[in-house]
Amino acid sequence: MKIIENPSRETWAELLQRPTQSVKDIEETVNEIFSEIRQKGDWAVTKYTNLFDGVSLQMLKVSENEIKEATTLVDSELVAAIETAKKNIESFHKAQKTEKITVETAPGVQCWMEKRPIEKVGLYIPGGSAPLFSTILMLAIPARLAGCKEIVLCTPPNKDGSINPAILYTAKLCGVTQIFKVGGIQAIGAMTFGTESIPQVFKIFGPGNQFVTVAKQLATKYQVAIDMPAGPSELMIFADETANPSFLASDLLSQAEHGPDSQVLLVTTSMNIAKMVQNEIKVQVEVLERKNIANQSINNSKILVLEDDETALEVINDYGPEHLIIVSKNEDFFVSNLSNAGSVFLGNYTPESAGDYASGTNHTLPTNGYAKQYSGVNLDSFMKSMTFQKITEKGIQNIGNAIERMAEAEGLQAHKNAVTLRLNYLKD
Amino acid sequence: MKIIENPSRETWAELLQRPTQSVKDIEETVNEIFSEIRQKGDWAVTKYTNLFDGVSLQMLKVSENEIKEATTLVDSELVAAIETAKKNIESFHKAQKTEKITVETAPGVQCWMEKRPIEKVGLYIPGGSAPLFSTILMLAIPARLAGCKEIVLCTPPNKDGSINPAILYTAKLCGVTQIFKVGGIQAIGAMTFGTESIPQVFKIFGPGNQFVTVAKQLATKYQVAIDMPAGPSELMIFADETANPSFLASDLLSQAEHGPDSQVLLVTTSMNIAKMVQNEIKVQVEVLERKNIANQSINNSKILVLEDDETALEVINDYGPEHLIIVSKNEDFFVSNLSNAGSVFLGNYTPESAGDYASGTNHTLPTNGYAKQYSGVNLDSFMKSMTFQKITEKGIQNIGNAIERMAEAEGLQAHKNAVTLRLNYLKD
Repeated sequence: MKIIENPSRETWAELLQRPTQSVKDIEETVNEIFSEIRQKGDWAVTKYTNLFDGVSLQMLKVSENEIKEATTLVDSELVAAIETAKKNIESFHKAQKTEKITVETAPGVQCWMEKRPIEKVGLYIPGGSAPLFSTILMLAIPARLAGCKEIVLCTPPNKDGSINPAILYTAKLCGVTQIFKVGGIQAIGAMTFGTESIPQVFKIFGPGNQFVTVAKQLATKYQVAIDMPAGPSELMIFADETANPSFLASDLLSQAEHGPDSQVLLVTTSMNIAKMVQNEIKVQVEVLERKNIANQSINNSKILVLEDDETALEVINDYGPEHLIIVSKNEDFFVSNLSNAGSVFLGNYTPESAGDYASGTNHTLPTNGYAKQYSGVNLDSFMKSMTFQKITEKGIQNIGNAIERMAEAEGLQAHKNAVTLRLNYLKD
Repeated sequence: MKIIENPSRETWAELLQRPTQSVKDIEETVNEIFSEIRQKGDWAVTKYTNLFDGVSLQMLKVSENEIKEATTLVDSELVAAIETAKKNIESFHKAQKTEKITVETAPGVQCWMEKRPIEKVGLYIPGGSAPLFSTILMLAIPARLAGCKEIVLCTPPNKDGSINPAILYTAKLCGVTQIFKVGGIQAIGAMTFGTESIPQVFKIFGPGNQFVTVAKQLATKYQVAIDMPAGPSELMIFADETANPSFLASDLLSQAEHGPDSQVLLVTTSMNIAKMVQNEIKVQVEVLERKNIANQSINNSKILVLEDDETALEVINDYGPEHLIIVSKNEDFFVSNLSNAGSVFLGNYTPESAGDYASGTNHTLPTNGYAKQYSGVNLDSFMKSMTFQKITEKGIQNIGNAIERMAEAEGLQAHKNAVTLRLNYLKD
């Protein structure tokens, strides 16, 4: 990691720049596959599963038997770990439930707002080398708590047509209602348009490679919502001299192992810490299985040494990191003044891994600077607010004139009439 | 309005179908204008304002003097009406403020979620025949309550380069920080990319014609969020024999006057009501200034007579109307079982106009069936949730093993190491 000392403000934008991705050619592929799925449903999904995953499936849906068998294959230690994580995620997300908000805004004018579940949601879980069952916990638990009726999960099959048992076990445990062996663009297309076997959903959640990301973005043209736009995962750390450099190095590496495009940044007010972390990384990376990936990502990463906490705060808010670790004697200053970050980890004993798996917070978070305007996934992501109002005779007499006057000024006479008619009726 | 009695379930989809819009050609125009704004900033914005609004501007920004003058031009009755609306909207949206949610998910593992304002937001207010100052109330009031620092407003200038005084007055009253004379695609482009005079924002809100709608959708490719995808405005009414047919007709017409593509539907269990509403509409439409527009919309609209409340509820939830009026002796049944609607108006004295202007609820609502997955604009639309966590030495010892086990099962060794290192350190 390259150390950069007190960079001038004009260079920040460049230093903090994320790699831009070109998606033009992917868009064409997505459009093609979407159009085929719309026309040919399961047939097209099966065709692309054959093409991309190299497996020819008879049934897209995972059977009850497959699920039953899977639960016997997950070792008891992992089962216990998943149960611990589930308990914590449940208790944090359950606490997010909000009550109905009722206000009598004027005498006789009762207004309220209530959240109701999105009835059908789709969860996408990537396949590949690592079976991301932890993401099922992060998505299916709040979906269930929110009260979503249908919770559909799509994940790509292995070459032998199977799905990793930990994925099936976790999906079952968390109340997923149907599981399908479909990945990539074809999974997003199937949940967007619906096929003979895969139901159409109202909102799609979950991470994926750039094909999935572009497919989710294009899906929003067809009446489906998505959790958020996605990009490579990121970690920014702010640390002063109270931090343990060896811990920091392990956190930076845990982010770096995700992929060569992972974003890792250390911001510090201590040159001493900067140098120690730099050395620790060199030592720790050597023993990692994913050493090559981590090294690529670390080579693109930077350590910024800044003169004070105020400047560091500005850099953090400018960047808007997905994950932010803060180890500082001025922790409160940062917590109070942070504007833009997805999830924040405080102190030497709070590694990002905790939030990734088991502390209870959600790990589906805004990347790419989207923390400036998007929330991470939470209970509300699976619900929508509806407003209600009930006005009495007295109530419409109270606010009727204001409505008439405003509707008239906007040139909307029929809007005014709807009130005038009622007011006249009440006069009689 | 055509009356359709007990349509069979297979015909519902067709009966409830909304007109689909083709946006392919608009997309090209948007891409062109966006690319010119990115390169040439104010120059391009001024050029397109000249082209589309027929006015050549020296300054895009509305001056303090223009705002001051405007406030003297709004008549006192309208000022009073706006103040009433503001008070009610403020009290309903203030009540939506949520507290920090804190949970100790396991001993020593403290997690919390907090909402913080989106720092920079952009409001788009259409121009044209009707100056929609009411939409400023609906957007700027919650933006201000949320604590957004920059609240930028764009609205197209009149042919003489002026802005309607009611718009300037309301913007000033509600705490908009800068107002620009820019409309259409160029306004959305300017707020997306930023120009010399117009600031880049993080999220864009507000209604508009199909050009604005497509521009907002494409803007989401460039790091900006939008309130929601938009379509023509809609009203569905459910009424039984307890409803006043004359009131219902006035409500249907108030929706129909918005535009020829407005969607208006009456669902009822009473053929008597159906016929009376049909007649009332014919009478009431005659005296409307926007009679032609209303007639076009009414001609495309339908009255469905259904056999019972249960069937009506199904139709409503299938459609997911933006606005829903319910006048029924079984009001509670509908309120409890509604899944999909933007804003709901209950009883004979609750016209949609009330929510459009002054009752306190927001009028920026999901159209086109998006009530199935999107909330209407509310206080949270101007904020994002951030999660925080702080774990003690005891805390990481409590959940550390679960994290290690899960990280290992996902093949993410560095994630595991970040915990192992800390646990080992604590053992020493």
